[in-house]
Amino acid sequence: MIYKDKTKPIGERVEHLLGLMTLEEKVGQLIQPFGWQTYEHIDGKIKLAESFKRQVENGGVGSLYGVLRADPWTGVTLESGLSPRLGAEAVNEIQRYAIEHSRLGIPILIGEECSHGHMAIGATVFPVPLSLGSTWNVDLYREMCRAVARETRSQGGAVTYSPVLDVVRDPRWGRTEECFGEDAYLIGQMAAASVEGLQGERLDSEDSVAATLKHFVGYGSSEGGRNAGPVHMGRRELLEVDLLPFRKAVEAGAASIMPAYNEIDGVPCTTNKELLDGVLRGEWGFDGMVITDCGAIDMLASGHDVAGDGEEAAIQAIEAGIDMEMSGEMFGKHLAEAVRAGRLDTAVVDQAVRRVLELKFRLGLFEAPYADPARAEAMIGSREHVELARKIAGEGIVLLKNEGGVLPLSAAAGKIAVIGPNADAHYNQLGDYTSPQPRSKVTTVLGGIRGKLADTPERVLYAPGCRIKGDSREGFEFALSCAERADTVVMVVGGSSARDFGEGSIDLRTGASKVTGNAESDMDCGEGIDRMSLRLSGVQLELIQEVHKLGKPLIVVYINGRPIAEPWIDEHADAILEAWYPGQEGGHAVADVLFGDVNPSGRLTVSIPKHVGQLPVYYNGKRSRGKRYLEDDAQPRYPFGYGLSYTEFGYANLTVQPASIPPDGTAKVAVDVTNTGSRAGAEVVQLYVTDVASAVTRPAMELKGFRKVYLGPGETRRVEFTVGVEELQYIGRDYKPVVEPGEFRIHVGRHVNETWSAKLIVREG
Amino acid sequence: MIYKDKTKPIGERVEHLLGLMTLEEKVGQLIQPFGWQTYEHIDGKIKLAESFKRQVENGGVGSLYGVLRADPWTGVTLESGLSPRLGAEAVNEIQRYAIEHSRLGIPILIGEECSHGHMAIGATVFPVPLSLGSTWNVDLYREMCRAVARETRSQGGAVTYSPVLDVVRDPRWGRTEECFGEDAYLIGQMAAASVEGLQGERLDSEDSVAATLKHFVGYGSSEGGRNAGPVHMGRRELLEVDLLPFRKAVEAGAASIMPAYNEIDGVPCTTNKELLDGVLRGEWGFDGMVITDCGAIDMLASGHDVAGDGEEAAIQAIEAGIDMEMSGEMFGKHLAEAVRAGRLDTAVVDQAVRRVLELKFRLGLFEAPYADPARAEAMIGSREHVELARKIAGEGIVLLKNEGGVLPLSAAAGKIAVIGPNADAHYNQLGDYTSPQPRSKVTTVLGGIRGKLADTPERVLYAPGCRIKGDSREGFEFALSCAERADTVVMVVGGSSARDFGEGSIDLRTGASKVTGNAESDMDCGEGIDRMSLRLSGVQLELIQEVHKLGKPLIVVYINGRPIAEPWIDEHADAILEAWYPGQEGGHAVADVLFGDVNPSGRLTVSIPKHVGQLPVYYNGKRSRGKRYLEDDAQPRYPFGYGLSYTEFGYANLTVQPASIPPDGTAKVAVDVTNTGSRAGAEVVQLYVTDVASAVTRPAMELKGFRKVYLGPGETRRVEFTVGVEELQYIGRDYKPVVEPGEFRIHVGRHVNETWSAKLIVREG
Repeated sequence: MIYKDKTKPIGERVEHLLGLMTLEEKVGQLIQPFGWQTYEHIDGKIKLAESFKRQVENGGVGSLYGVLRADPWTGVTLESGLSPRLGAEAVNEIQRYAIEHSRLGIPILIGEECSHGHMAIGATVFPVPLSLGSTWNVDLYREMCRAVARETRSQGGAVTYSPVLDVVRDPRWGRTEECFGEDAYLIGQMAAASVEGLQGERLDSEDSVAATLKHFVGYGSSEGGRNAGPVHMGRRELLEVDLLPFRKAVEAGAASIMPAYNEIDGVPCTTNKELLDGVLRGEWGFDGMVITDCGAIDMLASGHDVAGDGEEAAIQAIEAGIDMEMSGEMFGKHLAEAVRAGRLDTAVVDQAVRRVLELKFRLGLFEAPYADPARAEAMIGSREHVELARKIAGEGIVLLKNEGGVLPLSAAAGKIAVIGPNADAHYNQLGDYTSPQPRSKVTTVLGGIRGKLADTPERVLYAPGCRIKGDSREGFEFALSCAERADTVVMVVGGSSARDFGEGSIDLRTGASKVTGNAESDMDCGEGIDRMSLRLSGVQLELIQEVHKLGKPLIVVYINGRPIAEPWIDEHADAILEAWYPGQEGGHAVADVLFGDVNPSGRLTVSIPKHVGQLPVYYNGKRSRGKRYLEDDAQPRYPFGYGLSYTEFGYANLTVQPASIPPDGTAKVAVDVTNTGSRAGAEVVQLYVTDVASAVTRPAMELKGFRKVYLGPGETRRVEFTVGVEELQYIGRDYKPVVEPGEFRIHVGRHVNETWSAKLIVREG
Repeated sequence: MIYKDKTKPIGERVEHLLGLMTLEEKVGQLIQPFGWQTYEHIDGKIKLAESFKRQVENGGVGSLYGVLRADPWTGVTLESGLSPRLGAEAVNEIQRYAIEHSRLGIPILIGEECSHGHMAIGATVFPVPLSLGSTWNVDLYREMCRAVARETRSQGGAVTYSPVLDVVRDPRWGRTEECFGEDAYLIGQMAAASVEGLQGERLDSEDSVAATLKHFVGYGSSEGGRNAGPVHMGRRELLEVDLLPFRKAVEAGAASIMPAYNEIDGVPCTTNKELLDGVLRGEWGFDGMVITDCGAIDMLASGHDVAGDGEEAAIQAIEAGIDMEMSGEMFGKHLAEAVRAGRLDTAVVDQAVRRVLELKFRLGLFEAPYADPARAEAMIGSREHVELARKIAGEGIVLLKNEGGVLPLSAAAGKIAVIGPNADAHYNQLGDYTSPQPRSKVTTVLGGIRGKLADTPERVLYAPGCRIKGDSREGFEFALSCAERADTVVMVVGGSSARDFGEGSIDLRTGASKVTGNAESDMDCGEGIDRMSLRLSGVQLELIQEVHKLGKPLIVVYINGRPIAEPWIDEHADAILEAWYPGQEGGHAVADVLFGDVNPSGRLTVSIPKHVGQLPVYYNGKRSRGKRYLEDDAQPRYPFGYGLSYTEFGYANLTVQPASIPPDGTAKVAVDVTNTGSRAGAEVVQLYVTDVASAVTRPAMELKGFRKVYLGPGETRRVEFTVGVEELQYIGRDYKPVVEPGEFRIHVGRHVNETWSAKLIVREG
């Protein structure tokens, strides 16, 4: 059997296998039912569902979505879910049934969510992508992706639905937390790193999984920040901004991609042949698999209404270049009949099957379909991964304000009151797309601070104060009494993307956990939770204002998933830390920063507005962007690239050499960066480019390079960048990339509003 | 001389004249200096400026902008400005100098603003376009345009910079008031009417002026509602939405058009050859003149930065299809030199000159260059026009709420307190693009109500209460004492687009006018005054809340230029009238409605949101538009097409015949509309179309017809519409209009959320 012979080239194996398959078997490869519905977990045993068995026997199951995913949406809880070992065993049982009870023994492609950690019980929960972006540390993120791939593959997961490469243009959007930020260049760097990290050198390694780029494309520009809303965007902006990170990831070898739910200018991405066939597979030469988002084909017939019924939707999708349908039933229900009735060409189905099979061969699933449960147990949530999660969380924290050097806290800080709904709500710091995790493995800010002051536990007071949402002030009194007794107050507020984990609620009057079954939901962020305000939810601001009246040094820690616009806090807090959702080690990471064990080095990758009415405020809008508003200017409160350190950095000797280059030339940009303070610290040296005059309007400044450098006190490093075609080109009048002769300004500095500049001339070619 | 021979065809005259002109004379025809700078007005005498004379002698002046315009921007005041008669005389002197002191005697094209009235002192000030749109009365608007043309031409004005055809998508934008609304179809109807009204049967009539369509195109979709900000829009949306009203106006024969300041997807409209040459002149066959917006060519080199310097900007503009530069100096400074240096082809200049000359010939300027001052005196602000202004203002008022039938006010209403900063500030009700007008010719709401109760003046109490902006509460006490003594309170609040007219301020403690020279500006709307909130400015809400505590029947009248989002008022006021800026007769119109002499028939042409954070909320977004926000749904507070009446209307017997048509067929839609109440009134019967499934995503409902019908109590009228290609087509996948076979839903009713529906099938062709 050629297709089972691993010495044969993959192409040959695919064609052989395809030639053996019936129409039903082909269609079977293009479907992806919900994984958690294929089995029952009863007292540590896995029992396969009869419906799954029938499906295997009647043509097969190409892929499963979320065998290991647990969360309220799947209905799988911490109690009913699978341990690392049992998860691997379950996958093996599923796989074994599929291989042994189908005619051709094709292994199933197990797909899992891995946005910031393998989405399984026990897996390491890293910070959300908005925090990952804030590290500006591509290498560290690549290392994280290796760890996530290792955990996922150890349980048999072979493809992930990450990275999310959407360019956030409206922070009302609840999925802002899932994105790296608002800048396409920075996302592009992370995109390449994610593919390198997840896929490793070879897809058939036990440490690798296939990356699925999503959401292709424009999803971060939805109308009104409303999830999956229509996107109003011209072709040039699409090519230049939103498509860039995807191109970078495809160049890095991404094996899979997912079209977005949204439409652009009237055409749903799921059926955008111009993008899927034209740009992606044509211009970019992408040779991987295209899988829809969950239910996206249904949406064509009910929502977008570009198809009259399910069959029409299925045909449109596969003809546009979709290979697999995630979790919907349109392919399974309609494709075979459409072929038989002559409404769909077999060749179109074959092409999709080819791509699915090729991915399975590349992943080595035919040779090694089974996971090793012992390895899963060792890898998942390993000490090494947990340490990495803490390090990354520390680098992702952005210090927004630090007045009078209130931070870092000295050992003599006296008593610290840790107050706020996110001070000890462990599920609130994990972010969306996380499975429930035992409280014991998550360190909250309260836990982190207690850890720092373990020798003097009486120095730490705690009160929840209020919930994220709702108007109950019943915890105010207790919170104020704690603050009154303390020398310093750390208020941990923000948001929550935690679907109800059934963790029980907290007694606001004492801070004690009341395990009462289901907790009242605090969700104000995450997928489908878009907001029309960027203010703190509930009575959090009021709590802070009440505490502030006591006159104690006030440090505000935000744990949340989108920019918070609270001018009062910006003005009155002594220090503000933006930690985003920092993952399971977040409390340690925040405490590390509060006490100075980690010098903050995170920088904003989203501009933080002053008011929702200013949107959009992303930094790289066009120069001719309109003027101020009556009430205020159109500038953000904290600009892109901004973030403080406990030390200071100086810039000197900026050079651009040569100062004049041909359009295909390169110049070296260099600058001396010095740690002029007395603590070691990291600076994110940012390079921006301005095209002084150009045939098409351009942003005032565009990020085109960055380096994170770690410098000891007094240390100077010469930081170098190369500027060439990739940094200078843009999408011209004819929609093709062009480097136009003329003057450019090269800016290097701390953030978009604090840079040093030099000139670069591009000569006629 | 052929060109002076009116019996020759215009084309021949143009070519002959062009053949006689020097390069400098040609360039002179393409410039348009500021009109108010060409003369001084000293004690009723006009003295031409030497600079103007030199310009005439050195090549000539093709056009002048704003000889008659007075406002703080021009520096011309009510005192220093020109009376109707003197204005005509001034234009004549200017014209005479140009004709007699230039080699070829080419008359000057006098251009004036006429958005809602000739922008001259003494001219009739009609309601702003947002109010005109709210009338849904195309015939009345056409009649108004005839009146405006008559007033303008009587002073020698030959071309106007109206209508404004921008589709408002973001009410933060300060120019919202200058637009008809958010719906392209409705704007298209008004667009055609404006051209018919302004231009009349013949441009060389003494009652006609050339219309200039603006701003071509996309200007109402600027980023963040910031004036002239970049527009993010795909080609299909542009073709289908923003270009539609312009196409309608071009089909109606518009003689002139103005590109917008903004860019679309990186290309400034001023140099968008694809739109100017491709769509406008190519596809649509537009044969008129293209004039830039004020300073738009400068903006190419400093702002958009698509040109390295002024000469490059001027060359780009004229090569893209611009014929005349409004008020900038780039054409005058650079074109001749560019031609001499071989950087610009003479043929390009000739083509622009040809179009300018052709318009002058069409206007009959060579035959009748002079105005008749006596006619100007008779026409401008004539009684007939003033009556028309009152009628239109009445029809443009939208009754948003009327609880417990508090309106109309009965004769026995007792004492009425008229309170609020817009109750008697006559300049605040005129809107932007109005010249200052004597207080005596403007009727405020206070004046209107006093007029109704002229026999019992003691029944009307008045207090300004507060200003539009600022936080002074010094007028609260007096306002509350007035309200306390009254039986009913009418609060007149809102905004102001009045540039400082130097009208003096109002003493908040007594309501007396204090003429103190310059008034503190109350402007919170108008060009360049974009807002980041849609709430009432200043302490107006607080004033209303204080008055509300007194428990009197509370009627809120909004006089303002963009939607107001004030949920508290929506909930607590007994009645709410939205009057927009209703023009000089606004106070009479509001009083007519308050007392039931006019039954309100205005309907919203913009959706009114609940909160700025919900934007955009325009009604005809795509069906798959994302879900609700965490805090509230994504629906407006008051929907498109909404507006109450003092009577009720019933709908019955909706028919669509035939129920099935070929793609090029038409169907008759008919419905019985009955006035089921006891008062005469007008209903705006609205027809919407839904394309049930289509190759490109479509809005849930799109306005495709409306009829304003006036019905006596108990009267029934069968209202008919024709639905055919124009109503059913949309811009398809290939960017061409298409009527797709399939099911359509035809909805007829009171507003977008209250309709009756029937099916229409389009058969295969």
